[in-house]
Amino acid sequence: MSSSFHFPPCTVVLAYSGGLDTSCILVWLKEEGYDVITYLANIGQEEDFDAAKKKAESLGAKKVFIEDLRAEFVEEFIWPSVQANAVYEDRYLLGTSVARPCIARRQIQIARQEGAQYVSHGATGKGNDQIRFELTCYALYPEVKIIAPWRIPEFYNRFVGRKDLMEYAEKHGIPVPVTPKAPWSMDANLMHISYESGILENPKSHAPADLYLMTKSPEDAPNSPDVLEIEFKKGVPIKVTHVKEGKSKDTPLDIFSYLNEIGGRHGVGRIDIVENRFIGMKSRGIYETPGGTILYHAHLDIETFTMDREVRRIKQGLGVKFAEMLYNGFWYSPECEFVRHCIDKSQESVEGKVQLSVFKGQVYILGRESPKSLYNEELVSMDVQGDYDPCDASGFIKINAVRLREHHRLQGEHRSKH
Amino acid sequence: MSSSFHFPPCTVVLAYSGGLDTSCILVWLKEEGYDVITYLANIGQEEDFDAAKKKAESLGAKKVFIEDLRAEFVEEFIWPSVQANAVYEDRYLLGTSVARPCIARRQIQIARQEGAQYVSHGATGKGNDQIRFELTCYALYPEVKIIAPWRIPEFYNRFVGRKDLMEYAEKHGIPVPVTPKAPWSMDANLMHISYESGILENPKSHAPADLYLMTKSPEDAPNSPDVLEIEFKKGVPIKVTHVKEGKSKDTPLDIFSYLNEIGGRHGVGRIDIVENRFIGMKSRGIYETPGGTILYHAHLDIETFTMDREVRRIKQGLGVKFAEMLYNGFWYSPECEFVRHCIDKSQESVEGKVQLSVFKGQVYILGRESPKSLYNEELVSMDVQGDYDPCDASGFIKINAVRLREHHRLQGEHRSKH
Amino acid sequence: MSSSFHFPPCTVVLAYSGGLDTSCILVWLKEEGYDVITYLANIGQEEDFDAAKKKAESLGAKKVFIEDLRAEFVEEFIWPSVQANAVYEDRYLLGTSVARPCIARRQIQIARQEGAQYVSHGATGKGNDQIRFELTCYALYPEVKIIAPWRIPEFYNRFVGRKDLMEYAEKHGIPVPVTPKAPWSMDANLMHISYESGILENPKSHAPADLYLMTKSPEDAPNSPDVLEIEFKKGVPIKVTHVKEGKSKDTPLDIFSYLNEIGGRHGVGRIDIVENRFIGMKSRGIYETPGGTILYHAHLDIETFTMDREVRRIKQGLGVKFAEMLYNGFWYSPECEFVRHCIDKSQESVEGKVQLSVFKGQVYILGRESPKSLYNEELVSMDVQGDYDPCDASGFIKINAVRLREHHRLQGEHRSKH
Amino acid sequence: MSSSFHFPPCTVVLAYSGGLDTSCILVWLKEEGYDVITYLANIGQEEDFDAAKKKAESLGAKKVFIEDLRAEFVEEFIWPSVQANAVYEDRYLLGTSVARPCIARRQIQIARQEGAQYVSHGATGKGNDQIRFELTCYALYPEVKIIAPWRIPEFYNRFVGRKDLMEYAEKHGIPVPVTPKAPWSMDANLMHISYESGILENPKSHAPADLYLMTKSPEDAPNSPDVLEIEFKKGVPIKVTHVKEGKSKDTPLDIFSYLNEIGGRHGVGRIDIVENRFIGMKSRGIYETPGGTILYHAHLDIETFTMDREVRRIKQGLGVKFAEMLYNGFWYSPECEFVRHCIDKSQESVEGKVQLSVFKGQVYILGRESPKSLYNEELVSMDVQGDYDPCDASGFIKINAVRLREHHRLQGEHRSKH
Repeated sequence: MSSSFHFPPCTVVLAYSGGLDTSCILVWLKEEGYDVITYLANIGQEEDFDAAKKKAESLGAKKVFIEDLRAEFVEEFIWPSVQANAVYEDRYLLGTSVARPCIARRQIQIARQEGAQYVSHGATGKGNDQIRFELTCYALYPEVKIIAPWRIPEFYNRFVGRKDLMEYAEKHGIPVPVTPKAPWSMDANLMHISYESGILENPKSHAPADLYLMTKSPEDAPNSPDVLEIEFKKGVPIKVTHVKEGKSKDTPLDIFSYLNEIGGRHGVGRIDIVENRFIGMKSRGIYETPGGTILYHAHLDIETFTMDREVRRIKQGLGVKFAEMLYNGFWYSPECEFVRHCIDKSQESVEGKVQLSVFKGQVYILGRESPKSLYNEELVSMDVQGDYDPCDASGFIKINAVRLREHHRLQGEHRSKH
Repeated sequence: MSSSFHFPPCTVVLAYSGGLDTSCILVWLKEEGYDVITYLANIGQEEDFDAAKKKAESLGAKKVFIEDLRAEFVEEFIWPSVQANAVYEDRYLLGTSVARPCIARRQIQIARQEGAQYVSHGATGKGNDQIRFELTCYALYPEVKIIAPWRIPEFYNRFVGRKDLMEYAEKHGIPVPVTPKAPWSMDANLMHISYESGILENPKSHAPADLYLMTKSPEDAPNSPDVLEIEFKKGVPIKVTHVKEGKSKDTPLDIFSYLNEIGGRHGVGRIDIVENRFIGMKSRGIYETPGGTILYHAHLDIETFTMDREVRRIKQGLGVKFAEMLYNGFWYSPECEFVRHCIDKSQESVEGKVQLSVFKGQVYILGRESPKSLYNEELVSMDVQGDYDPCDASGFIKINAVRLREHHRLQGEHRSKH
Repeated sequence: MSSSFHFPPCTVVLAYSGGLDTSCILVWLKEEGYDVITYLANIGQEEDFDAAKKKAESLGAKKVFIEDLRAEFVEEFIWPSVQANAVYEDRYLLGTSVARPCIARRQIQIARQEGAQYVSHGATGKGNDQIRFELTCYALYPEVKIIAPWRIPEFYNRFVGRKDLMEYAEKHGIPVPVTPKAPWSMDANLMHISYESGILENPKSHAPADLYLMTKSPEDAPNSPDVLEIEFKKGVPIKVTHVKEGKSKDTPLDIFSYLNEIGGRHGVGRIDIVENRFIGMKSRGIYETPGGTILYHAHLDIETFTMDREVRRIKQGLGVKFAEMLYNGFWYSPECEFVRHCIDKSQESVEGKVQLSVFKGQVYILGRESPKSLYNEELVSMDVQGDYDPCDASGFIKINAVRLREHHRLQGEHRSKH
Repeated sequence: MSSSFHFPPCTVVLAYSGGLDTSCILVWLKEEGYDVITYLANIGQEEDFDAAKKKAESLGAKKVFIEDLRAEFVEEFIWPSVQANAVYEDRYLLGTSVARPCIARRQIQIARQEGAQYVSHGATGKGNDQIRFELTCYALYPEVKIIAPWRIPEFYNRFVGRKDLMEYAEKHGIPVPVTPKAPWSMDANLMHISYESGILENPKSHAPADLYLMTKSPEDAPNSPDVLEIEFKKGVPIKVTHVKEGKSKDTPLDIFSYLNEIGGRHGVGRIDIVENRFIGMKSRGIYETPGGTILYHAHLDIETFTMDREVRRIKQGLGVKFAEMLYNGFWYSPECEFVRHCIDKSQESVEGKVQLSVFKGQVYILGRESPKSLYNEELVSMDVQGDYDPCDASGFIKINAVRLREHHRLQGEHRSKH
């Protein structure tokens, strides 16, 4: 990556966090001869965006973009994941994964608009995020060139440890963080905070109690539940109401933020898992997803209430595939677009209200109602017959047994010895 | 079902619970001319088995079998379900479903041993249990004849409501329950208690607080967690230890009972769902599965820790299928035997210890270790390189992008407008 | 089924074939007190429809409907099956299955229009067709009552063999067939002819050479191939051209009929299989599907040429499910509608021309072209590099190997002994 | 790849074909300072192995291995693929894919035995074979270093076209082929020959008639069929008999070779497809797989005849996954080993004899028999009732309709308008 080949100066759009790493990358890119545009997405993380802006400018960014993507993050990325009941490996609600295509999409829009042929990011070379960022970039801007310093030997051999970054920062007038770094790394957005690496790399050691920033400890959570009613239409929440307080929210961002608040207060959505990265290694991650966890349970309930059993079965399979695509970074792929379309189609009648209680880390479904439910109280009743003849069940069972009896016949009498 | 066609007297083995319904069935079968053998399985439910025995004898049962199936229930039925992470429709741990083949298997053994051509049960004509019982019977004893009174018009038209049963009972010297029936029905075994019908049939109305018998309310649960360590081998628990108290259990029945105790104390495993029955109707069920819920979480954790990602993906699909078979009553089917074999094979390296905390209705995984883990702390570390070249990731991403870029190329420039 | 319960006279719409069985059923239904409307669908079978009409009238049918459904059969039923590459159990192209919902849909339309509460058919009690007919009826007309004489004891015990039908026919003035019945049964429509039962029930015995009516024997087929070009749009054929003769067809019914003609002449599409019926038994069937077989191959080719790999993989799974639904009679079900929608969505870019040769029972794909192909001749070329860096493949392989190497590491050195 | 870093001389095991490319690679590796061991696997391709040996020695190979892998290729690689009915993307029988792990396994055995840390091959940088070879190598010998010259810039920039290789050959005393190269490339083994690239890269142009080496043109094939009987046990063929001639074969290699002979004579197994490579591009391939095609049809038939419907459905899904793994090079992966185990388990009862006719490019199944069939001639018969009550079917259908009727009810009367 010698500077010779990109003369006259090329423009690079750098996904900039304001932290030590990407500040060093900013300066390093300038050293390498690039004009650097920084881009910082507001996807709901705690951040002093003004300070980050000033910092980037002071370090020589040619332009600085601070973009509030929170509303589109909820509506275009979180909502489809809610519709899909997207869970990776049975546990992870994909809070980091779902933010990546949202962030990278805007980065590409800026690159195109600014005539930049390069984009850059500070993701590491062992993780999933590099893949999620870059597949989005290549999908939306196939000719783009990507600079991933943590995969460029002359960069990563120069900055082997944090000490090297600190020294470089001091030398180049990059403000150095005053508080010591936590012994793990984290990633935060509106949907969740993830914690990994550092002392968490030992899968046996328990996470420290003070790790969590988004949720209270269940032990310290209130001693009485909050009861919410969430209303869905086409598989997405359109209103949340606090049953006792009467308070309600009805825009996507407000709904999600409010669920985060309630879920966070009650310690909802903490998990500690070992997961399989796309690059083939197992890693340990700790996640807290308060609002997303509430929505997961609520959506699952209204969906099963309103969706035909067999449609649900097929949709469940598509949801598993969707989660894998999302995790692996394929949001902008033909298959993910196809699956999102199919899942969206499946949600047409997923409509109604779910009441639930949030308490001490748990979400309890209490009841549900829907104008489109396939639930038929009379049909299922033990007290009235409804339009159902119990004799039919005999034939149903006998026919289902045809195959089993043939199998037994063939097996001879092995079975009777069980 | 006139008595004429089974002369001379035929023998029927009746699955007998000791309750009003099956007591009436016992007497009715005798009226119809059958010799009745009663069979009551102990699968961990609360029951006065001696009293039930005496009652059956007093009502004219020719023979009475009381069978303690608890150990085989855990080892041969619950354990394979734990290996499979068996969950029906993303929520139900199948506590009732898994007991049915266990109960019916012994019923068939008794029928064969006693030379009975008939078996009978008191399951209703709208439910899943009739199917689960009968498919097991037909699979293991293809020539068996099944008498399901609740599907025989002359029976169910005679006993339209509970009042009719009460009158019949009084007339025939059947002891009538003195306590009023709960306004719902329940089914209990070692794995869970289920509640349904009656006032629960309205899917909107909340379950009464005093419904639950196996778990304490999370609100009344202890204010500090119990921390357990569960050790697995070949995908099944071989030991559970209370970390603080040092207490441990190491036989299947003891392990499972102890997990029920701890889980029950902390209110773990309560769910309120609408599910899809095999016969095609939606029904509302409330379940409490304390020990099973703890095991579900622990097994999921140790499995992901020790199993290859792609094996896991295939096994996850098999587990979903297994859960459906189990729910629908196909335990004794060629496909379920095949899938159990495959799942068992997948568990060869699922071995190690999981530490978890049980608190206020929740199970929190704290850490895990295994001699067979595929987790490689050095490989995944952010601090050391390990045997990994970050440059490889660039090629990996570029090749994965080939397809996406081609797709974009074909789509022309639609995509940039996103 | 005593006549008492349907007084005053009820109307039944009978699916009438003009043959001995349904003629007897017509008369028997009248005996039972019904007003009978007969309905005969023209779905492309060889039949004297006028004669059938007169016969029905002479036997006392109150009304006679002869309906030409050929165009809608091709467009609304065969085309979606082509899009799906629908094949049951890897071999059967579902020619009978796909006709059933088409026939039953019109029967229900007639029943509603004529105010009939009953429908009836002559399908046997062991087959799939009874299910396919009746599920369609129940789905489209939930209150309908179905009379299936071959499942009514008083009917099937009266007509045990063909001799009984003949006697009844003679007694009631029903014209008796003069040619002896073939020693098997067949079902014909535009898509295929199926042969089963009788001497074919022995799965070992070869089918007689003179069985086939729709295709010539490959041995007697022309000694030179016909080369066709089939053009597709949205996954369905819009034009077929005989390359040498220049002849072409461009309406669905014409296209399909022409493919039948060419395929039939060359003996294409004969299979002899044992399949699994929905009711759980294995049966032997022989099928000839000339045009459908040509289309299957052509569609597969253009689809793979134009569809993204991963979309194809998901669509392939949906196609397998679709074939099962179709075989089992669930065309009019929520899940089949959902899957048809998804498959149709997947076909948006399935467009282009396929050239193929038809010869001696075989279809050979010769070449294909498409304005929407994802095939990139430069990218794949061995002679030019295209926009592709071979070095990327090294990283791709190395990263894919991470998991395999970890697995090997764990397994110790077992592997080196291989 | 400067020679400096592997001093003292390192040993590399080169997969050597005897052709121009790998001869140049051999010499180039020596130039780069390696000790070169050549390895040539006999997997049934036409080749003068002695000449190849002499050539390698004359070019300076330190050691030369010529290994006859034909028997293990059939037994350990082709047979499991037959059990799986392995087909990639519905058409390709995977003849190249299945040979790669067989070849690479021995290469690794030689490398370990000879203490070589390096292996090398001549596969191109755009294809699947590089992946199949290398994943096998990494899986079986995780520390191995792989030299793939066609991905090393200093190699592929030096040898841009065939002309460069010819010049290099002449300069280094490498015998230059006298016959001109065909305008496509091919790969041959016992299972098939594949043709691709060159003039075949245009997907529209037809393959030349003289392309095929393993099969006769159907037009020139004999005018009367050969009838074979193939006997299977545990899903693999154990004997093939020519029905008329009485000739039979009963070892794996003999059976497969004989099927190639018969299939080749009749022009069986030619396909022309566009497929999706693992690296994400579409490519056009032409394949001829005579014996494999016969076996595919025969195995499918005996499997469906003897395997339970639902086991088959699950196994079919596993087979699709297996084919993808095989195509992508993951034979030696935990998931492929798992799936092979499961598929093998499913074959326990796949036993019996299939009669088939081979004629003019087609395979026609004529009949089958088995001691383990689940086919029950009496049960399925239209003439006798067997142990089957047709009334049961009514209940079966009614219960299956419950869900459809509920759906219709909910949809209101939309449906009747269809």
